[in-house]
Amino acid sequence: MPEQSLKRQFIFDTAKGVFQLYGYQPIETPAMENLDTLTGKYGEEGDKLIYKILNNGDFLEKANQDDLDAKASNKVATQISDRALRYDLTVPFARFVVQNQNELSFPFKRYQIQPVWRADRPQRGRYREFYQCDVDVIGSDSLLNEAELLCIVSDVFDALGLGDIQIRLNNRKILSGIAHATGLGDHFGEMTIAIDKLDKIGVDGVREEMIKRGLPAAGVKKALDHISRKADADTLLRMLSGSLTGELEGQKGIDEMRKTLKALPPHVRKKVSIDLTLARGLNYYTGAIIEVCHSKFPSSICGGGRYDDLTGIFGLKNMSGVGVSFGADRIYDLMEELSLFPTTLKAASDIIFINFGETESLECIQLAMELRADGYSAEVYPDAAKMQKQMKYADARGFRFVILIGSEELKEERANVKDMSTGDQSSVLLSDLNKFIFDKLGSDD
Amino acid sequence: MPEQSLKRQFIFDTAKGVFQLYGYQPIETPAMENLDTLTGKYGEEGDKLIYKILNNGDFLEKANQDDLDAKASNKVATQISDRALRYDLTVPFARFVVQNQNELSFPFKRYQIQPVWRADRPQRGRYREFYQCDVDVIGSDSLLNEAELLCIVSDVFDALGLGDIQIRLNNRKILSGIAHATGLGDHFGEMTIAIDKLDKIGVDGVREEMIKRGLPAAGVKKALDHISRKADADTLLRMLSGSLTGELEGQKGIDEMRKTLKALPPHVRKKVSIDLTLARGLNYYTGAIIEVCHSKFPSSICGGGRYDDLTGIFGLKNMSGVGVSFGADRIYDLMEELSLFPTTLKAASDIIFINFGETESLECIQLAMELRADGYSAEVYPDAAKMQKQMKYADARGFRFVILIGSEELKEERANVKDMSTGDQSSVLLSDLNKFIFDKLGSDD
Repeated sequence: MPEQSLKRQFIFDTAKGVFQLYGYQPIETPAMENLDTLTGKYGEEGDKLIYKILNNGDFLEKANQDDLDAKASNKVATQISDRALRYDLTVPFARFVVQNQNELSFPFKRYQIQPVWRADRPQRGRYREFYQCDVDVIGSDSLLNEAELLCIVSDVFDALGLGDIQIRLNNRKILSGIAHATGLGDHFGEMTIAIDKLDKIGVDGVREEMIKRGLPAAGVKKALDHISRKADADTLLRMLSGSLTGELEGQKGIDEMRKTLKALPPHVRKKVSIDLTLARGLNYYTGAIIEVCHSKFPSSICGGGRYDDLTGIFGLKNMSGVGVSFGADRIYDLMEELSLFPTTLKAASDIIFINFGETESLECIQLAMELRADGYSAEVYPDAAKMQKQMKYADARGFRFVILIGSEELKEERANVKDMSTGDQSSVLLSDLNKFIFDKLGSDD
Repeated sequence: MPEQSLKRQFIFDTAKGVFQLYGYQPIETPAMENLDTLTGKYGEEGDKLIYKILNNGDFLEKANQDDLDAKASNKVATQISDRALRYDLTVPFARFVVQNQNELSFPFKRYQIQPVWRADRPQRGRYREFYQCDVDVIGSDSLLNEAELLCIVSDVFDALGLGDIQIRLNNRKILSGIAHATGLGDHFGEMTIAIDKLDKIGVDGVREEMIKRGLPAAGVKKALDHISRKADADTLLRMLSGSLTGELEGQKGIDEMRKTLKALPPHVRKKVSIDLTLARGLNYYTGAIIEVCHSKFPSSICGGGRYDDLTGIFGLKNMSGVGVSFGADRIYDLMEELSLFPTTLKAASDIIFINFGETESLECIQLAMELRADGYSAEVYPDAAKMQKQMKYADARGFRFVILIGSEELKEERANVKDMSTGDQSSVLLSDLNKFIFDKLGSDD
């Protein structure tokens, strides 16, 4: 619906404005990627949710007869489908970077705002088609990039009226250091999968799951003690540094975290806290892990991290990247709940002229044109319909001004202007109409 | 690529600005529609070009065994695919209007800018995924709508710097009147298909084709005499009115054309000419037919018309609509050829700070933040890489200013600012930096 579309556009335009101030450039990739570009990148569950495009023409000719006879849908699918709809923006971005590596200047800073598709069961807050809004730097391992992205996150949410976000920061290398220091080094994957559920099942639940998965109880206790610690960043990092003596990777993570925090201006720094329980799946991430929360929303509204080898799967090695993804639909819901959208987004037009017949409407068309030239949106009702019908339309659309010019008014070269926000009615000379509207509305639009 | 994306966005933003001044509202529809919503709407050839989505899960279970054995790909396709990618914006719009008829206020004025997909062989100027940009009014048969759309067309192209367009106008009812008056009434479809090719094969070619299709030669001659007439609009319509005496539909078309032209302001009127050879396929059209051309481009860059019963196929009768579609890709190519894109679209950022190391870069981050607060886009190179590498990046990206703050400059609280447009280098106090940039760039961005 129009109002939703305008509100979503408002979020994207706001974000774009910030991205561009930081020198990020837009790219767009096609909705369809080659099927084999996408498969194998999202795990077994993810692969099932990829929408495949049926080949055009005599697709059955290329299908294997044995697989058809066996009704092996999974196998046949890859024989009759060469393309698929993108599942996220990250893999197409990696493919794009590899394909255009010779034309791009690195570090390459891009943003991308496009829909993605997942064959999920639709439910509240989860759609088959939804927008992702990603911002990434690729080709630089400087921690200034992490800091810059945190500034961008802060600026975007400030601009949307969501200044009171909390940014949680973690580092995969620290988690790995903790795993090794507590004897869980061989179980790092299982450890992080369990920790990832901490919000949902609590510390006891996580402990239980880790032990059920066969992790040594003593190590589990120590690791959970580490990640559950709460303190200010300096204290926490100092304590960690002490506990992880000799753990090179862990120390590197601590150093990365320190440098990132140091590069933050105070107004961003105060929104950032270290949260060692933050794991975020970890598929790609190799360094920083970022998540943004708001007290009025149950799940994260933005997240991301550092990935050291995203383009490696497409043959381009040593391209470190870091990025965040804004959850546009969640931000939309949150802003709706907090009534943060500008009220001007609701009414598409400022002014409507009521249609009293051919002669009058031709005059109105001329006047509307002059109002538009001054930047006001104006409509002429296209039919000389009954007054009641026209007023009903005006009400439903929420115009600020309804202008009535019947044959009498036309003779006197005056318009009857009704201000719907106050109910006031004024008789205005046609030659003064633009000035009258300007005095009421200003020239801000 | 970023530059293309920015340029396309510029076209869309320009068009949106005009649409909104006229009170049109944005809608978006999902990329996927039910397959049966789309099939049968675009003719046999069109149906073949629809991208079908393979059902997820065990899709083969629902396929008919006989059809599978016969390798009847066409039949099987509809058994293993429930959804498809939209082929245009018109059919999804009709579906949207019918589905939301109780929430919409009619006349409903909407614009829609989204990609569509066609399984065409890709070639120059024709892509498998391309944007359409449609603007329509539905629920009013007033000819003021036709006139308004012509004003919108004129305003959009003016705003893009393409003020020298020609708008060609025809009316299906006039063509039908001509067919009936010349004894070709039973061959109306064939007549228009042939006429549609006039640009390509000339009058003789059209005559030949009509006769080959079995149309009576005398009628063909008369009809071609009619549509080939060139004169100013008033003369042409008067002559036509005389020739089509007694042809009610033809007279109605002439009257529609007169009313539409009468409602146009002079600066739009002068761009519009009547062209009776304009047929545009005619699938939907029942009244006005509109096409926009530019002398520097071989094909039309915008087109549309009146369709009296678009939503009828989805069960909502008597909803007359009229709309035009902007050919975004063609307009892009034309603007590129005429160098009409603002030069500012190329450079994403105004300013880059060269990175001399940690201490210096932290100061640069602070300065960049202050510049952004004044609306300038600014970057800090993230790595303390070799000067040559950083300058190469700065060159490739096309920054206006390169700012160098090494340890010496930092001590003196000065920056070395290089204006890349002139080659001038200035030493500026850090506290004067924003003012210096303002003096050079102004505050227009």
